[in-house]
Amino acid sequence: MVEVLVWLGTLVFAATGALKGVEKGFDLLGVLVLATVTAVGGGSIRDVLVGTLPPTALHNEPLLWSVVGVGLLVFRFHPRVQALEKPIYYLDTLGLGLFAALGAERGLSAGLGPFGVALAGMLSGVGGGVLRDVLSGEVPVILYRAGDLYASAALVGALVVYALYGSHPEAALFAGALATVLLRVFGRRLGLKLPTPR
Amino acid sequence: MVEVLVWLGTLVFAATGALKGVEKGFDLLGVLVLATVTAVGGGSIRDVLVGTLPPTALHNEPLLWSVVGVGLLVFRFHPRVQALEKPIYYLDTLGLGLFAALGAERGLSAGLGPFGVALAGMLSGVGGGVLRDVLSGEVPVILYRAGDLYASAALVGALVVYALYGSHPEAALFAGALATVLLRVFGRRLGLKLPTPR
Amino acid sequence: MVEVLVWLGTLVFAATGALKGVEKGFDLLGVLVLATVTAVGGGSIRDVLVGTLPPTALHNEPLLWSVVGVGLLVFRFHPRVQALEKPIYYLDTLGLGLFAALGAERGLSAGLGPFGVALAGMLSGVGGGVLRDVLSGEVPVILYRAGDLYASAALVGALVVYALYGSHPEAALFAGALATVLLRVFGRRLGLKLPTPR
Repeated sequence: MVEVLVWLGTLVFAATGALKGVEKGFDLLGVLVLATVTAVGGGSIRDVLVGTLPPTALHNEPLLWSVVGVGLLVFRFHPRVQALEKPIYYLDTLGLGLFAALGAERGLSAGLGPFGVALAGMLSGVGGGVLRDVLSGEVPVILYRAGDLYASAALVGALVVYALYGSHPEAALFAGALATVLLRVFGRRLGLKLPTPR
Repeated sequence: MVEVLVWLGTLVFAATGALKGVEKGFDLLGVLVLATVTAVGGGSIRDVLVGTLPPTALHNEPLLWSVVGVGLLVFRFHPRVQALEKPIYYLDTLGLGLFAALGAERGLSAGLGPFGVALAGMLSGVGGGVLRDVLSGEVPVILYRAGDLYASAALVGALVVYALYGSHPEAALFAGALATVLLRVFGRRLGLKLPTPR
Repeated sequence: MVEVLVWLGTLVFAATGALKGVEKGFDLLGVLVLATVTAVGGGSIRDVLVGTLPPTALHNEPLLWSVVGVGLLVFRFHPRVQALEKPIYYLDTLGLGLFAALGAERGLSAGLGPFGVALAGMLSGVGGGVLRDVLSGEVPVILYRAGDLYASAALVGALVVYALYGSHPEAALFAGALATVLLRVFGRRLGLKLPTPR
């Protein structure tokens, strides 16, 4: 079950990376690189930081080839994929929550404290998108888009995992992912915004 | 004593990162991310390269939370912090010298030669600032600001540590940090400049 | 022999990095940083990913100092180096093929599958150039230059190594490097292009 969700989340991340490549007018290789980096970059940065080398994703051949498959589909049918804005939004949020929670768990296994765990979770969720934006020549969207609780939602989810993991690991992961998802979805509906400097 | 100086240096780096985030109009999360990356990014890149994983800073929870505290203070009181230009300049220079020397020591422990040690020292001092600039969508300032001997001062300090460490480790660290500080401060007063291509 | 070719390839990569630094008007330190990053950055990223820490290149002091030597030469004589467009093109292609093949071999030793090996090979060949472009504030050229089969040629070369390595390791490396070189050189002559999104 978790496996299926990880696949879903990874492939949706791949789609958003490929869409960015299409939008920037990159060539086929550029689109596929962006799909791959966005899909597995966050987890790989986290794996580098906690010392799991090679990163887990680099061993997962079926997943990596599926990422490329998604990249090819987006390359070919991008107008239709772009029209799927709503499902992409929800699946992307699901992926974010999932990766934040599973990333936090990796931080816990590496013996990190709450800040380290929060960072590991957040990086797992948003690191791929940060790489995607930097490679596209753009400022990472998570740094300034106050009105979309994204990285901050991942951060909160990771902290939930940290707080609850000791007693009920599985419930903690579930609660953490859920916290991220709810915070993003309801944050948007309620118009929650991070403050910006005055 | 060294511990105290490391804290001072780290927190000043955090302040410069947070100020950059404020200047770019990032939201609260963006400002805190930039503070953290600038404060501990250089040492973390060095730790990745020498294979100390997770990076030391990720275990130092009190320091990490203090970095966030500084980020919050800058976020709230940035005009007043910006007015502290002079003390920030000197504390930042102190941090640079310190991190270059301590980074060089890590390079020595990893068995690197003079070039490797110089790189480890320089990266420890300037790596966080490079990440800060790249994430802000800017060309890293160390690459082109010929009139401010910054990365080059760190490089020289690291080489001083390399040259003297064998006989007197503590004196070598002190001399290396001092070399960096003096080179930056007097380099500016004397109008020293790195050449630029003609 | 391979050793000599690796030196040649590395130093040509250094020259292209230094030229980019000159073109951007960086100062001496910036030019040397760009030379170093371009020369050894790709292999270092690969080494981080496969867990060879510190990266091999950081131990190769003669090579690192030679990289700086090339950087200094380019800094001083850049108009003359720029005029060497043709030899640089061929030596750069040679370096690309070589690093892709040797990088693929490292991926194989790390137990990676075809995708992982292709990634390790491609990153070894183009990772330094990607870092160079990002540090220069530019979008990595490999992502959009459809008409120059560069990263894709490295990818194919790495896959050739993957396919043939089991039976004849040395022949596989040779064939992989050759595939990359031929694909780039004849791809250009024949006007081969990667597709771009419509």
